[in-house]
Amino acid sequence: MKKTIAALALSLSCSVFSQTDEAVFKTIYNKALQDHQAYNWLDYLSNNIGGRLSGSLNAQRAVDWGKASLEEIGLDKVWLQPVMVPKWIRGAKEYAYFESSSGQTTEVNICALGGSVATPALGLKAELVEVHNFEELEKLGEANIKGKIVFYNRPMEVELIDTFRAYGNCVNQRYKGAEEAAKYGAVGVIVRSMSLKIDDLPHTGSMSYGDLPVSKRIPSAAISTKQADLLSHVLTLDKTAKFYFRQNCKQLEDVKSYNVIGEITGSEKPNEYLIVGGHLDSWDLGDGAHDDGAGIVQSMEVLRLFKTLNIKPKHSIRVVMFMNEENGLRGATEYAKVAKEKGETHVVSLESDSGGFTPRGFSFDCQDSTLDKVSTWTTLFKPYLIHYFEKGHGGADVGPLKTNANVTVGLRPDSQRYFDHHHAESDTFEAINSRELELGAASMTALIYMFDKYGI
Amino acid sequence: MKKTIAALALSLSCSVFSQTDEAVFKTIYNKALQDHQAYNWLDYLSNNIGGRLSGSLNAQRAVDWGKASLEEIGLDKVWLQPVMVPKWIRGAKEYAYFESSSGQTTEVNICALGGSVATPALGLKAELVEVHNFEELEKLGEANIKGKIVFYNRPMEVELIDTFRAYGNCVNQRYKGAEEAAKYGAVGVIVRSMSLKIDDLPHTGSMSYGDLPVSKRIPSAAISTKQADLLSHVLTLDKTAKFYFRQNCKQLEDVKSYNVIGEITGSEKPNEYLIVGGHLDSWDLGDGAHDDGAGIVQSMEVLRLFKTLNIKPKHSIRVVMFMNEENGLRGATEYAKVAKEKGETHVVSLESDSGGFTPRGFSFDCQDSTLDKVSTWTTLFKPYLIHYFEKGHGGADVGPLKTNANVTVGLRPDSQRYFDHHHAESDTFEAINSRELELGAASMTALIYMFDKYGI
Repeated sequence: MKKTIAALALSLSCSVFSQTDEAVFKTIYNKALQDHQAYNWLDYLSNNIGGRLSGSLNAQRAVDWGKASLEEIGLDKVWLQPVMVPKWIRGAKEYAYFESSSGQTTEVNICALGGSVATPALGLKAELVEVHNFEELEKLGEANIKGKIVFYNRPMEVELIDTFRAYGNCVNQRYKGAEEAAKYGAVGVIVRSMSLKIDDLPHTGSMSYGDLPVSKRIPSAAISTKQADLLSHVLTLDKTAKFYFRQNCKQLEDVKSYNVIGEITGSEKPNEYLIVGGHLDSWDLGDGAHDDGAGIVQSMEVLRLFKTLNIKPKHSIRVVMFMNEENGLRGATEYAKVAKEKGETHVVSLESDSGGFTPRGFSFDCQDSTLDKVSTWTTLFKPYLIHYFEKGHGGADVGPLKTNANVTVGLRPDSQRYFDHHHAESDTFEAINSRELELGAASMTALIYMFDKYGI
Repeated sequence: MKKTIAALALSLSCSVFSQTDEAVFKTIYNKALQDHQAYNWLDYLSNNIGGRLSGSLNAQRAVDWGKASLEEIGLDKVWLQPVMVPKWIRGAKEYAYFESSSGQTTEVNICALGGSVATPALGLKAELVEVHNFEELEKLGEANIKGKIVFYNRPMEVELIDTFRAYGNCVNQRYKGAEEAAKYGAVGVIVRSMSLKIDDLPHTGSMSYGDLPVSKRIPSAAISTKQADLLSHVLTLDKTAKFYFRQNCKQLEDVKSYNVIGEITGSEKPNEYLIVGGHLDSWDLGDGAHDDGAGIVQSMEVLRLFKTLNIKPKHSIRVVMFMNEENGLRGATEYAKVAKEKGETHVVSLESDSGGFTPRGFSFDCQDSTLDKVSTWTTLFKPYLIHYFEKGHGGADVGPLKTNANVTVGLRPDSQRYFDHHHAESDTFEAINSRELELGAASMTALIYMFDKYGI
């Protein structure tokens, strides 16, 4: 019956709201769609700055731009929060081919995984062993793996409607693939790109060696989906085909960077915070427009809309541009640590880090009572085709802020195209649609407006 | 209370369905996403055939391809239904510029509107008068319009979430703009492209002269949104700027063409039809991938999925590839006429003609009782994020089949990007995402499956 009661509440909720909330929603959506501010910001961040890997010059340029842009909005406070971040550099463009047993070579597209070590300077050539999971790896054992390159080729599951689930089911190959393969004496790792599109683009992303000593670390790289299929086919025809790759990426010393933070101070509960954020760093292959330039500019737009529309929040509203989500989460960890030290109560933390596509709704990491409350708001969102309000993950950057008492929320955009671009050179501003991006920003603003007004 | 009862029914509906329906849904979606058949068909139609304006050689090639492709599925019947269609040809690439009062010229991108007459062979040059609607035109009157080119510049409203509404509110400028302007002695018409994106692409589309005698017909063309803004700005600075354009499009005699039809004959009610369809013709500037190649291949996929998954329908299921939706609706008119003559009962007619983007749901032109019934099915669709089930337009091609007793339905995909491509050279296969297209096909299949099993 629980469901029925919620549904009843939902059906009656039209009359509960004052005209004011409907009118405020309309104003928020109209303004976001008319002004194109989120889109214009993203144009600058993507095209004038570009990819901004943690610790890079471009990441620092993004920090400077973020601070200056927030200052232009006229917030109550804008500041930088220092944080040490890892600095990994890709080095020269990677090079790879496979070689048939008769010596014929065919070039393929790879990219080093973030955090990987380099190959020897002259590259690395070895036979391949294809596996789809760690169980297969274990079965093959050292006898079949030692001295070879392990080729992880488990594709994302096309049947899953939520492509993030398909990603989640695959990503251990990339993240832990080298660590696992090294245990059996592999000399390198090639991983099928985490993408649902069959094309020529390799997709990078973070990997870890876990507790492996430095001497045991082996280089790992991603290969495009199309060429992963090709390689797999070749191996059925020519079992002793070899693979060559060369990369000279490097992990340097940690460097100083910053979270960029801006605030509108609350009129009634200034020490209770509703925050919106995304991550300012990105991978280096594209310009990071979807991952996560979109989340950054949408979060900025939430505060701009509050200011421009003269909505005075009761709680303090913050935008946080987290540094180093991609390969360390150092910014998020530092932000949560400082918040705790200062005794700041984070009531709601809303993250956008799933691309700038048409928003479908939100996933909530919260108590049931909060979701029941939110479900009485859904009629307000319906005209904007925002329909998804479910329990789920808030997001990586808001994760460290989660307590039993508070709420973390993730914006859930349409996910079908996301992994076509994720961590690849096609994650560029051209893949962004202005209206889709702006609808996401407006939806985030509307949700924060409701939480500020009615609590959790 | 009506809403509450529906909501109650909804909340209880989980238990109403047999496992079978859930399982069938899963099989349908899985198969569509795994096989990529709709996407592969669209690749061929878009890239190997291309734009296919009614009466063109390419339209005939598309007919031949459609028939052959349906025959490969192994349907019970496949046939061509003859229909006479208009044949309008664009001729040589259009050319246009505006000229400041000091004689400086600036080239702009235009395209003739479908059905327009040509300019004189050497082109047409005149002063411009900018208007936003027919009321402004009337107010200006013959005194201000005679001998000039009328420039219609009312943009699509960015605030409307349903971009088809924004289109509907604008399109009279394109369709009737020349007819209205000619009444006041205008010599030509330039219309702002129906697009929400500010770019350099002109968007074509049909126009009509209504009852205007041939001698009174004036040429009309679309200008890109970016250059419409430019032109408008120029006119504030230089009121006597002139516009030149040249186009040699032509309306020829009607020619014979075809609707392409395929059928799975029903096991219990063979003379009651559930049909799915889109239009096979397209405009000539792009390759018609979204408008309406997507609808064609999604409709084909519905029947392929029934066949492949061995779902035996009670009613006859037809796919209809309508010819000449864009500039005449002759195929739809003929199909409905023949259906009536033969006494075929069309129970449900489902059209996909709103682009191949992520499906959000369906709009139903039906009695309340049917929508109440459909609303008890929504839990089955929820895992696929299909949430929109509302009263609304079925579609242009299924329109002539509508009676008081039957149901017409339109697939409603996400509409935010659609008018970026609609009728422009960017309506190409590259703008299609495989999964989004396939999810639409699966959703159509699932809905037809439910209507076949449970009736309307």
